[in-house]
Amino acid sequence: MITSTGNAKVKELVQLQKKAKNRNKEGVFIVEGGRIFTEIPKELLVQVYVSESFYEKNREMLAQGAYPVEVLSDTVFDYAADTRTPQGILCVVRQLKYCLEDLIAGEAPHILVLDNLQDPGNLGTIIRTAEGAGVTAIIMSRDCVDVYNPKVTRSTMGSLFRVPFVYVEDLPEAVAELKKYNISVFAAHLQGKNAYDEENYSGGSAFLIGNEGNGLSEEVADTADIRVRIPMCGKVESLNAAVAASVLMFEVSRQRRRNGKER
Amino acid sequence: MITSTGNAKVKELVQLQKKAKNRNKEGVFIVEGGRIFTEIPKELLVQVYVSESFYEKNREMLAQGAYPVEVLSDTVFDYAADTRTPQGILCVVRQLKYCLEDLIAGEAPHILVLDNLQDPGNLGTIIRTAEGAGVTAIIMSRDCVDVYNPKVTRSTMGSLFRVPFVYVEDLPEAVAELKKYNISVFAAHLQGKNAYDEENYSGGSAFLIGNEGNGLSEEVADTADIRVRIPMCGKVESLNAAVAASVLMFEVSRQRRRNGKER
Repeated sequence: MITSTGNAKVKELVQLQKKAKNRNKEGVFIVEGGRIFTEIPKELLVQVYVSESFYEKNREMLAQGAYPVEVLSDTVFDYAADTRTPQGILCVVRQLKYCLEDLIAGEAPHILVLDNLQDPGNLGTIIRTAEGAGVTAIIMSRDCVDVYNPKVTRSTMGSLFRVPFVYVEDLPEAVAELKKYNISVFAAHLQGKNAYDEENYSGGSAFLIGNEGNGLSEEVADTADIRVRIPMCGKVESLNAAVAASVLMFEVSRQRRRNGKER
Repeated sequence: MITSTGNAKVKELVQLQKKAKNRNKEGVFIVEGGRIFTEIPKELLVQVYVSESFYEKNREMLAQGAYPVEVLSDTVFDYAADTRTPQGILCVVRQLKYCLEDLIAGEAPHILVLDNLQDPGNLGTIIRTAEGAGVTAIIMSRDCVDVYNPKVTRSTMGSLFRVPFVYVEDLPEAVAELKKYNISVFAAHLQGKNAYDEENYSGGSAFLIGNEGNGLSEEVADTADIRVRIPMCGKVESLNAAVAASVLMFEVSRQRRRNGKER
């Protein structure tokens, strides 16, 4: 059992929580909590850390797994954890690797393209909602918040392992790629021409979603086939990015369910 | 200028930020930031606190207002502010008072009923989205997070002043009141009978939204006329409460816009 916060493994763990650079160098990330532990594809598990208390209660379950388990004293575990009320289990997990071409080649893909999204809670919520709405892939500009940030992974509630995603260096280039596959590209834009529900999303559809404070840059918005807006009452100028994305995703889901029934 | 954090007004300000009890006793709340300041109905302004730097830059604008202005040294201002990067202006604002009967008596009201919602960010996002979706009132159970919590007021982005709301002691009783006014009551429920988009929301409609972790209690869900679900793909069990509410609100908005056009 590790009983010192000065232990090399504990120091490494803390750095993996805090720094994207360290995560990317090792090709791993940290997942915290008992519920999400059950959703990690076991072949991705590199190492499991548990608190002494968690170990005592879950000895049998842990003995059955084909992954190395390291026990930390409760104090050291609380030190290494990112949450205020840690649940006693932390996993080092291999990063997920997807290829853009694979993600956009399917039949009628439903894609989100995120440009410079910054809030970890928003990204986590978008990934969780995306799974529920049947999104097939998420494409992110390199300057979006890191998907392996502990705040993001937590708020995805496990959907991180089920919704494919890629970071791209050049977003307009990725959008050009989508168009080659006949995917219609819609920019969520306050000055959109049509209301979002006046478009037909039965074919391959992608939505460009912009930064929380500034929306989409003109450069990125210009790559879209059409700008759509969410009609708004009152004096509201814009919606929260995760809310706007959710309204659009569930409109696609709604239309596709309706079309399915009418066939 | 106030230069000490020990000043009685500064102490009172900090307590008003932190404690609902103090806010309710005084019948006021605190609003922070330059943008939201411009959205406060001026008759509600009790007192404005500014940092020395803010005062220097905005002396003329502040001189025009018919409200008392108190200047704090920058250090004291930062101490009193709730945000990490304060913008130099803090307002003491009178609490808003609405009457349930007034809120539900209009033509085809669009109402949200929140049961034990706990996350300040969720409540703020719901209020902001509600204004955009044309919601006419929000009814909250007494055990919901305090709408005057600084985290809530900030994330409403000013919509707090434009979307009427009430807290009620007895939620089932409030729902019974809605029904008297022929408002259809829908419970957002994972085991809902119909998909949310199969219902007609052209008449008065109210949605019951439950707690983040536990959803709606059976007692409250039972008061609804019908339970509706948001159909979900993948392994997602539930959506974030603000996302679920947003999808429902904008479905009402969508249907009503469509109906308006067809007339």
